[in-house]
Amino acid sequence: MTLTLISIGLADERDLSLRALEEARSCDALYAELYTTVLDTDVDRLAAAIGKPVKPLPRSAYEESSDALLREAETAKVGVLIGGDALSATTHVSLLIEAKKRGIPTRVIHGSSALTAVAETGLSLYKLGRTVTLPLPEKGPPDTVLRTLGENREHGLHTLVLLDLDTESGDYLTINRAIEALLDAERSEAFGVDTLTVGVARLGWENPDIVAGSPGDLLDHDFDGPPHALVVPGRLHFLEVEALKVIGGCPPEALEGWVPRGEVAVLIVRYGESCRRAVEKLEYAELPSEVSREEVKTLIEHAVRYLEDAEHYAEERRATALASVSYAEGILDALRLLGLVEFEW
Amino acid sequence: MTLTLISIGLADERDLSLRALEEARSCDALYAELYTTVLDTDVDRLAAAIGKPVKPLPRSAYEESSDALLREAETAKVGVLIGGDALSATTHVSLLIEAKKRGIPTRVIHGSSALTAVAETGLSLYKLGRTVTLPLPEKGPPDTVLRTLGENREHGLHTLVLLDLDTESGDYLTINRAIEALLDAERSEAFGVDTLTVGVARLGWENPDIVAGSPGDLLDHDFDGPPHALVVPGRLHFLEVEALKVIGGCPPEALEGWVPRGEVAVLIVRYGESCRRAVEKLEYAELPSEVSREEVKTLIEHAVRYLEDAEHYAEERRATALASVSYAEGILDALRLLGLVEFEW
Repeated sequence: MTLTLISIGLADERDLSLRALEEARSCDALYAELYTTVLDTDVDRLAAAIGKPVKPLPRSAYEESSDALLREAETAKVGVLIGGDALSATTHVSLLIEAKKRGIPTRVIHGSSALTAVAETGLSLYKLGRTVTLPLPEKGPPDTVLRTLGENREHGLHTLVLLDLDTESGDYLTINRAIEALLDAERSEAFGVDTLTVGVARLGWENPDIVAGSPGDLLDHDFDGPPHALVVPGRLHFLEVEALKVIGGCPPEALEGWVPRGEVAVLIVRYGESCRRAVEKLEYAELPSEVSREEVKTLIEHAVRYLEDAEHYAEERRATALASVSYAEGILDALRLLGLVEFEW
Repeated sequence: MTLTLISIGLADERDLSLRALEEARSCDALYAELYTTVLDTDVDRLAAAIGKPVKPLPRSAYEESSDALLREAETAKVGVLIGGDALSATTHVSLLIEAKKRGIPTRVIHGSSALTAVAETGLSLYKLGRTVTLPLPEKGPPDTVLRTLGENREHGLHTLVLLDLDTESGDYLTINRAIEALLDAERSEAFGVDTLTVGVARLGWENPDIVAGSPGDLLDHDFDGPPHALVVPGRLHFLEVEALKVIGGCPPEALEGWVPRGEVAVLIVRYGESCRRAVEKLEYAELPSEVSREEVKTLIEHAVRYLEDAEHYAEERRATALASVSYAEGILDALRLLGLVEFEW
């Protein structure tokens, strides 16, 4: 018959859309998958809102015996209620693919999601880069989060950092625990005490909370219960700056210290400056009789042209700029290593 | 009193959540902003679903006289119904900020959005990079879209390309028109005839359509009415590849031709190869008496070490790799330009 993935939305059964309710009511069997998101509801409240029984789908059953679910969907209308927007987690995409492979008609009813609700911070959704989940400490180090923060910053993009939870044990990361874990990694180029950060709690719930500031500012704030998430902004439009102040109460100091430059941009500036210094300070060595001062001068000018290119392209064509400045560095270093000029890096 | 932004969701009044309905019913005045998204509804149908009159908000009124709206919200409960998830467009964030500045309590009721519904393609939302809107031809060239495609690809991220519409004239971009505009720009490094592309139409509606393939494959397909959007995938997980085949009917050829390498990665390979060729083919020139063959050889070995670094770091530390290979190129070129070695790039 059919498999329908029905989004519950952000908080509770009242986030179900009329379409979701209608679809759920038309199902022969309803299951709820309640382990990937923190919701303010349970199967009984969902069942009451829909007016049909809803069976909880335990995590293991969902991942290992989705086969049973799909077999049921071969002969009945099966609906699976999922927190947030249904396909945000990869697991549910697998279920959809598997159903399609078995020739079972599928449908997805969409709902509200933290991935777009985060726009309540005033940060543009269009500028979100890769999204990551910070794992609970026992599940591993924050390496992927830190790498992603660096990569998104490289392109001036915001990073949404979702915080891990273990619905079985009831353990979950708070904004405070997450900030401490990120600071403890001591990778200040990715996340340090000056990194502008936005803490968001319970987006779409009755009592959402949004605070922007330095990690220290956020540590001083009590965000109350889950779900929590972090957003680390990239380059900011003036409207986003205003939003962080007005909506998130961001102190001006936290904004001033914020330089969202990525590694390529940092290297262009660093190498460019050291090449400029080298060109200014270099002195011609005693030249071999066959090498003219003119030749060396021409080569230095050649390097300087590449430096100028790098400065010109630094904003719009960063890859070209980094290649140019590094090439210039190579030219200058060859002259130095051959003993034709003297300078120190 | 209050200003509440109420998300309509993806398609029509049935995408309103129970929370949205409840909130709308409690408002003293309701407006609908229907010009930023294509919806399959109108003020009358919204009014019927809510059971209260809904006034359309003309575009000019919304942008220029939001002042009137906010003044009304000072003394009454005002609700503004907005397609998709309410804060996806910057305009609505401005309204929220302005209300907060005037001390008007605000609230946002979230709803379904194309930005997460696009997960129905099977592509991971977590790997979405910057999102862009392709403008209607009379509004300008596709430069920003092309630059964004290149940048996202650089980090292996997917790009959601929203397609512009003009609700006043009724003109809108289709997947076909968008693909033609992107191909016409002749910037194949960003979007060319081999670029793996996914066309999505009417996500969250009763009859969504998802097709993955080459631009040519998509041009051959009739996607029917709006709203349309494009997704250009970045690096793909095997589960995403499977999804594109099973959900989007992607032909294997379209996947084989797909190399989601960004500019930095391309430059590392290109420069690395030309340096390797140079080192292999170079011949020592007749050296000045004061320059020993040993010195030149040492410098070539120095360059080769940087080349090896670049190859080593090519995947994980692309910026360092590009800087290394370009530095090596500078060293080799200095030797060539000084007439100490002979080779051609």
